[in-house]
Amino acid sequence: MTTKEIAVLGAGSWGSILASVLDENGSHVRLWSYNEKQVKEFNDLHTNTKYIKNFTFAESIKAYHDLGEAIDGVDYILFVVPTQVTRSVAHQVAEILKARHQKVNIIHASKGIEEKTYLRLSQVLAQEIAPENRQSISVLSGPSQAEDVAVKDITLVTLASNDQKAAKTIQGLFMNHYFRVYTSDDVIGVEIGAALKNIIALGAGALYGLGYKDNAKAALMTRGLAEISRLGTSFGANPLTFIGLSGVGDIIVTATSSNSRNWRAGNELGRGESLDQVIKNMGMVIEGIATTRAAYELSKQRGVDMPITSAIYHVLYDGADIKETINQLMTREGRSEIE
Amino acid sequence: MTTKEIAVLGAGSWGSILASVLDENGSHVRLWSYNEKQVKEFNDLHTNTKYIKNFTFAESIKAYHDLGEAIDGVDYILFVVPTQVTRSVAHQVAEILKARHQKVNIIHASKGIEEKTYLRLSQVLAQEIAPENRQSISVLSGPSQAEDVAVKDITLVTLASNDQKAAKTIQGLFMNHYFRVYTSDDVIGVEIGAALKNIIALGAGALYGLGYKDNAKAALMTRGLAEISRLGTSFGANPLTFIGLSGVGDIIVTATSSNSRNWRAGNELGRGESLDQVIKNMGMVIEGIATTRAAYELSKQRGVDMPITSAIYHVLYDGADIKETINQLMTREGRSEIE
Repeated sequence: MTTKEIAVLGAGSWGSILASVLDENGSHVRLWSYNEKQVKEFNDLHTNTKYIKNFTFAESIKAYHDLGEAIDGVDYILFVVPTQVTRSVAHQVAEILKARHQKVNIIHASKGIEEKTYLRLSQVLAQEIAPENRQSISVLSGPSQAEDVAVKDITLVTLASNDQKAAKTIQGLFMNHYFRVYTSDDVIGVEIGAALKNIIALGAGALYGLGYKDNAKAALMTRGLAEISRLGTSFGANPLTFIGLSGVGDIIVTATSSNSRNWRAGNELGRGESLDQVIKNMGMVIEGIATTRAAYELSKQRGVDMPITSAIYHVLYDGADIKETINQLMTREGRSEIE
Repeated sequence: MTTKEIAVLGAGSWGSILASVLDENGSHVRLWSYNEKQVKEFNDLHTNTKYIKNFTFAESIKAYHDLGEAIDGVDYILFVVPTQVTRSVAHQVAEILKARHQKVNIIHASKGIEEKTYLRLSQVLAQEIAPENRQSISVLSGPSQAEDVAVKDITLVTLASNDQKAAKTIQGLFMNHYFRVYTSDDVIGVEIGAALKNIIALGAGALYGLGYKDNAKAALMTRGLAEISRLGTSFGANPLTFIGLSGVGDIIVTATSSNSRNWRAGNELGRGESLDQVIKNMGMVIEGIATTRAAYELSKQRGVDMPITSAIYHVLYDGADIKETINQLMTREGRSEIE
């Protein structure tokens, strides 16, 4: 395999660690950030202190502030920017590719649903980047905390693609002895699982903040998985995807780890902090907040029962009392388990 | 509903807490234990210190050492004895019921598979107790640590039965504002999930003991769920059961909580303790050890691929090096996620 040129757009914790994995595996990697100071730190010191502590990047990865330079001549573009800016970054990328008649493979590893349009990110990318400038669109997801990948914890992820030949190649770019990639053709299921797990993480954090224990947490996660799966299959996702790495796997890692921003935000809400204060405290994007609204609206559109999403929506957006709302949610009448 | 007479057989942490829930809900409950000292403590002090700390039982629950007295005239018998003694206790119960021409509803809440026969507990109970002495056979399972139920954490469980009318009645006996019961008709799936989750708990504990982190844990749990589901469906279980409370829900609570005996045993093995020493340290039954052998043998019989179960089997029974075996397991070649 010839060496691939890859641009990673977004230098948060996940983007920069994925850049490191790709570089370690032998690709030529460029890391783009909108933040000039971060680019300078990365190139001078090979660190990304705000996002990944105690980690030194290989000197072979160069950071760029100019998007045109970052993607010049690359074979692959990996989007790892926050969900709500994916469209604007993709739009700029699209104009550059168009002007250069450049054609690339698109991958993304972000977890969310676009506000207002309620589109998955592969849909946003497909809308913005013209068909003549892209070959394949893929999504990388699964239980993968950047902090754990940084210390080479064994990590299993899913790479779903609309093109199984591209999926195989991309699998090869990421795969090594600690980063294990499984392919899938279910882009819809992987993206919906990836996005909506943040709602469950918010809920699990809230339960903890409210003083609930492990039984309640496991129940919330299980019923949460069921409602995510109901919404996903209503869009044509494969139900088996939700019991895979990008479904239950990611729910487990996100909802049982206090490393998760969404879990931490939920925990602070459960302890009685206001939403504004929680957002201020976090200082990083809490994807689950926008995702909750998107999933709530989608569930109404599709007529899918999503009690956990609804409860969290009412707490976040309608000022519903969190203690009362969560208690009502957890004690709903249950009949038979499989509806 | 007339007040029901219920005998709970087995006064470990789970049996005694279930007795407490049933009593609180208004049934007349008798708790049987083979241990005379424990029966005396329970009746004198209303405590069960070895199994549940800081908990005082209602005086209305009486403990019995005589099995005949414990089940005399009862409508329901709930078996919560260790898996490997279920047959011998059921055999004694059967003889008493037969002599008295007594007919009861049978429930069990134990989690394991019988050694040598590799039977599920509802099969063991059906073999031992004659059809003329039983009406229904049900199993109660789900993410339910006794310690959490003791403090009234909201707990969601599944009650699977061969008789949906009985299931409804039993649901009513257990259900209250913090203990929520969902019914199911999939006895096979619930019993297999309940038993085999202990293998995953052993594995998750071992990963932790070996120094792996959250990504690896989530991956093991996800792939573990997949192999349990494969074995279960080969016996006719409903695949949806495995993404429910008694499947993934119980895996989550057992494999992410250091309260779990099986997790703790795995953790000690991962840290390099010998199996004999681990068993000695624990002082209570570690159901996962016998279950691993049973599941391993069943997977061979059925031709079902169970790499996690096999790896743990080889560590427990063949003296395989735990570090090397787990590393091999976690870095197996992965192709597409859904085989």
